[in-house]
Amino acid sequence: MKNHLLKQLFGIKYPIIQAPMAGGITNPNLVSSVCNSDALGFLASGYVSASVLEKQIIETKQKTKQPFGINIFLSQTIQNLQAKKQSTLINLEMQAGLQNSQKQINVSLNEEIEQKIELAVRYCIPIISFTFGIPDQKLVQYMHSKGIHVIGTATNIQEALEIERANLDSVVLQGSEAGGHRGSFIIQDQSDEVGLMSLLQVAKQKLKIPYFAAGGIATGEGLLSCRILGAQAAFIGTAFLVSQESSASRAYKDALLRSQGKQTVITEVISGKKARGVKNQLIEQMNKSASMGEPIQPYPIQNALSKDIRAYSNQAGNSEYLSLWSGQSLECIQEKSVTDILQKIIKEYEESLQNIQNLSLQ
Amino acid sequence: MKNHLLKQLFGIKYPIIQAPMAGGITNPNLVSSVCNSDALGFLASGYVSASVLEKQIIETKQKTKQPFGINIFLSQTIQNLQAKKQSTLINLEMQAGLQNSQKQINVSLNEEIEQKIELAVRYCIPIISFTFGIPDQKLVQYMHSKGIHVIGTATNIQEALEIERANLDSVVLQGSEAGGHRGSFIIQDQSDEVGLMSLLQVAKQKLKIPYFAAGGIATGEGLLSCRILGAQAAFIGTAFLVSQESSASRAYKDALLRSQGKQTVITEVISGKKARGVKNQLIEQMNKSASMGEPIQPYPIQNALSKDIRAYSNQAGNSEYLSLWSGQSLECIQEKSVTDILQKIIKEYEESLQNIQNLSLQ
Repeated sequence: MKNHLLKQLFGIKYPIIQAPMAGGITNPNLVSSVCNSDALGFLASGYVSASVLEKQIIETKQKTKQPFGINIFLSQTIQNLQAKKQSTLINLEMQAGLQNSQKQINVSLNEEIEQKIELAVRYCIPIISFTFGIPDQKLVQYMHSKGIHVIGTATNIQEALEIERANLDSVVLQGSEAGGHRGSFIIQDQSDEVGLMSLLQVAKQKLKIPYFAAGGIATGEGLLSCRILGAQAAFIGTAFLVSQESSASRAYKDALLRSQGKQTVITEVISGKKARGVKNQLIEQMNKSASMGEPIQPYPIQNALSKDIRAYSNQAGNSEYLSLWSGQSLECIQEKSVTDILQKIIKEYEESLQNIQNLSLQ
Repeated sequence: MKNHLLKQLFGIKYPIIQAPMAGGITNPNLVSSVCNSDALGFLASGYVSASVLEKQIIETKQKTKQPFGINIFLSQTIQNLQAKKQSTLINLEMQAGLQNSQKQINVSLNEEIEQKIELAVRYCIPIISFTFGIPDQKLVQYMHSKGIHVIGTATNIQEALEIERANLDSVVLQGSEAGGHRGSFIIQDQSDEVGLMSLLQVAKQKLKIPYFAAGGIATGEGLLSCRILGAQAAFIGTAFLVSQESSASRAYKDALLRSQGKQTVITEVISGKKARGVKNQLIEQMNKSASMGEPIQPYPIQNALSKDIRAYSNQAGNSEYLSLWSGQSLECIQEKSVTDILQKIIKEYEESLQNIQNLSLQ
């Protein structure tokens, strides 16, 4: 591991990957700033159409000459499904100040997977990562034929081994510390909530393909630890979410920066799929509602149902009714420029490396 | 950190602590073997009386001249409380082959905290760790006056800071990966389920007292990572639980060694307190029962209720009705002697250290 994989393949100096964060966080400005600071940026194409992604690719390419990746959700296509909001959600909308929203809504989701891959080919994007499953064998072969490095996402060793068997090039191991949606696709009970330290130790013994670490990594010491445990690089999300360049709303950033010392929870009540975030009224009330028997719809239906209140609260600056997705290392993040965040992590990393002789037991 | 704390204080060569495992796992033979292999052993006094502990201390001292620690549970004293077994538990007892056990049982628990501390003083035990809370200020002062190093157990940064404020000497940070009971005493939702990688990064920024790492650490790379993240040493449990010297039953060890790749869950249904273990029929059926409204009693009552079936299954060699407490790194453990387990970890640690120059980014 003399050169980390990113350096070997793409000439990137630092083994740091800005995690793709869907929902309008990772904009071209953030992504290009990461790339221009010698780390790897990632556009998140989840929830957006291929045409929106294309605009973002073009804009990012105008801002950087460096390579960047795109992330694609492998969500099921859903069209024109009618779903009814839970009465609790309607009450919460009124409490938040949102009047007269629709109670029965039309849910449609098409992640346009093939079209997004086609864009990557057309714009010479060298890396695609996938979340929520493993892409079809034909697609994998097609991407390989175009020279694209294909990354899977796993939350336990079984998923990682499935990704290896499917001939993907590498895998991001998402520890239970990670913010936002769990990338799980094989779940038995809490089998997708493995702590990163454990996940990496097991991977070091069992996995043959290269792997990346994700989940609560926010310091240089954290990055170095992951590399000692065999990770080629670390995906860093929350630390970039509060960066000056991020598109996260003021209310969202403030809530995270304020939440130092409080804890995050894993919940399904906002989107219908497990995700980690800071607990607020939205989670608390929907939990209460679910415990009293009002069913939470499966993803992406519940996500669509809770969209109105989240969008309204975002604009209104009210963090109690937002989704405050976040990892577990909130105490380690600060609102700074992307460059400052990266420099701080690299400085900590190099200082740790220099002090390491002191750790010898001889 | 030129010398780790254990070396500074007690002259112990390796920064490895055998985690105290209550319920008859960590016997004098195991503890003394660890001590005689240059690491720190720990007797677990949870669930046993002071007089049993005294016998174990004497036996351990006959087998080693090295220092070792004792762990004390800060559980509430309960006397002569009558509790009724859940009907599901009675059915499970019959399924396991246990006939005619009592349906209404007498629950008494006295951890004899003061008496155990007195034993430590009398037998010159230099280290006491506490689980499930913070000892009373007078007790802390008393132990300090006798030169005892006092360790607290925390599962999140709030608990760790409370322990620091209470003037304990150091704290073990128990990541969500850890097997057995969570040492939590301040719980809000999942605030006691923080992954070790995150817990250590946050501790490095916020804690002033020395800290130890616990939770799924089973390899030298894991140990080195924890030390880079500022931990003085690592508590290792599950890896020693399957050692040749451990008193874990054949059924228990086999179940863990067989469970590679399967996952553990955090459950309250066996003891009434959150603990991590391999899922089996006991957990599954009690979960089902709880979800249908049959209440699980608080600790230690539920622990007493489920004792008969666990003791019987242990003897009968049936792992389906045991408590299979285990951490999340099951794929990394092997049944070997204590010395071999320690040597393997130290070898991995030193090899990692030697290869570390390759991780420089310059």
